[in-house]
Amino acid sequence: MEITFLGTSAGLPTKERNTQAVALNLAPYSNHIWLFDVGEGTQHQILHHSIKLGKVDHIFLTHMHGDHIFGLPGILTSRSFQGGEGKPLTIVGPKGIKEFVETTLRLSASKLNYPITFIEIDNELSYQHHGFEVSAHLLNHGIASYGYRIEAPSTPGTIDVAALKEIGLEPGPKYQQVKTEETFEHNGHIYDSTQFKGPEKLGPTIAIFGDTKPCPNEKMIAHHADIMVHEGTYLEGDKTLANNYFHSHIDDVFHLVDLAQVKHTLVTHISNRYNIEEVDNLKEKLKEEYGRNDFNIVKDFDVVEF
Amino acid sequence: MEITFLGTSAGLPTKERNTQAVALNLAPYSNHIWLFDVGEGTQHQILHHSIKLGKVDHIFLTHMHGDHIFGLPGILTSRSFQGGEGKPLTIVGPKGIKEFVETTLRLSASKLNYPITFIEIDNELSYQHHGFEVSAHLLNHGIASYGYRIEAPSTPGTIDVAALKEIGLEPGPKYQQVKTEETFEHNGHIYDSTQFKGPEKLGPTIAIFGDTKPCPNEKMIAHHADIMVHEGTYLEGDKTLANNYFHSHIDDVFHLVDLAQVKHTLVTHISNRYNIEEVDNLKEKLKEEYGRNDFNIVKDFDVVEF
Repeated sequence: MEITFLGTSAGLPTKERNTQAVALNLAPYSNHIWLFDVGEGTQHQILHHSIKLGKVDHIFLTHMHGDHIFGLPGILTSRSFQGGEGKPLTIVGPKGIKEFVETTLRLSASKLNYPITFIEIDNELSYQHHGFEVSAHLLNHGIASYGYRIEAPSTPGTIDVAALKEIGLEPGPKYQQVKTEETFEHNGHIYDSTQFKGPEKLGPTIAIFGDTKPCPNEKMIAHHADIMVHEGTYLEGDKTLANNYFHSHIDDVFHLVDLAQVKHTLVTHISNRYNIEEVDNLKEKLKEEYGRNDFNIVKDFDVVEF
Repeated sequence: MEITFLGTSAGLPTKERNTQAVALNLAPYSNHIWLFDVGEGTQHQILHHSIKLGKVDHIFLTHMHGDHIFGLPGILTSRSFQGGEGKPLTIVGPKGIKEFVETTLRLSASKLNYPITFIEIDNELSYQHHGFEVSAHLLNHGIASYGYRIEAPSTPGTIDVAALKEIGLEPGPKYQQVKTEETFEHNGHIYDSTQFKGPEKLGPTIAIFGDTKPCPNEKMIAHHADIMVHEGTYLEGDKTLANNYFHSHIDDVFHLVDLAQVKHTLVTHISNRYNIEEVDNLKEKLKEEYGRNDFNIVKDFDVVEF
């Protein structure tokens, strides 16, 4: 899979960073793309990237602050002209996201050429699509803000051809049944498929957080995640101040990484007061200070494969 | 005065052009800036320009299509952090603009630190501010679209010092009265001020059009304008097709220029199918074909002083 950062700034865009948007490419499990948050100018960022809007079939919003949703009306109307025609879109987000989209489209007399399904989260979400399991839980940001946990499908174990030949089953269409079903029939016998293939391979787990100060639900969302995307609005300075503004300090992020045993963390939602060079310097300082190398502070257009 | 194009594309942004926004710098008559239309990403464009959001005290919207208004919520929230604190803003636009702003701000839990006054145009507008006369009239674009006519204040004529000295009035505070009032008193006599100064100098007239197919109101809006900003969505091809889509063909624009005796025309709202080079080539072709040099086809960040 692949995650692309289309915007990594907090609150306001800067010359170097746009407001929030993350694209999750579901390949090899699906040829679709899911967007998480759509700050103003996300469609502009996509112009400079190979992402096709027609491949985006889900947009997830973590919360309703402007730097996370003001690009949504533009993405939706442009999608009509950029490969989205006739391709359904699902928008998942906090209560109010339907009114936001419907009001902006109605007042701008915009007509889309594809249907939208809205899923408004009321406290928590459990959702399945393309074999992915998506759950969302409430964070602590002053307004409703959600963290999404995305579990990729498992891949069936490798067929044990030697063992199947031993029971007289030569390679053929029935091998697919062995691969995907619990049991299969051969010569009047019912066999347990798991005896004829290697162990199932779990797909990666991704946790994508909305803005939040530390809160108990975070551990559940991030538990053993392969990739975690978390805000780090305060990379230095006073932790109490960060939390008073319902945001996380980098120290909070590292605490969560250890608590939830997250494998790799991508820190985004960087304060607009820093330029890229300052952030790179801060990153090196943090690596040294905390003695860790299991994170990155991302920039716009950073791509992470996993 | 000075006009800056912050976005010159039609419908969708391109890599080279943003959606619509025009900044009118009112100096030397006022130190404020007026924006006309605010496509998505206008605040991003302003990051690359010296315009200060705190100096913008009026935003005029020509019509409600997304490529003209989707940048408004972002401009409004960013203005709070970029010099706008405590500085009132007036938003002028078609019916619905108040609901658009209020809904997007409410749903995004945005709190501004300055007051907004809304003026929703019902068919036509007559408005005075900073000594400017602004009028708006309805165009023909399928939805309500307006053309704005902005008349800068007149500058009082130059004082005729010799004539004033002749009646015994030496330079002093009373000269200001001669300059700005119709009459003045000196040694018991009431004088007609116009006899002691040169003719009043008319300020420039600017006409800024929303999207439209040709319609009768256009002539009135553009009459003898020094600068006209007009859409030219169709720079070539079939004129009937352009008009069927409620847009103007470049031929319509030139017809209006002649009809209203406009001095200089800036053609914007360029189809997103052209790149900059193609537009430059088309411009040269049009100059030759129509034998005229009283227009330009503008690009993002073009500045015109007048």
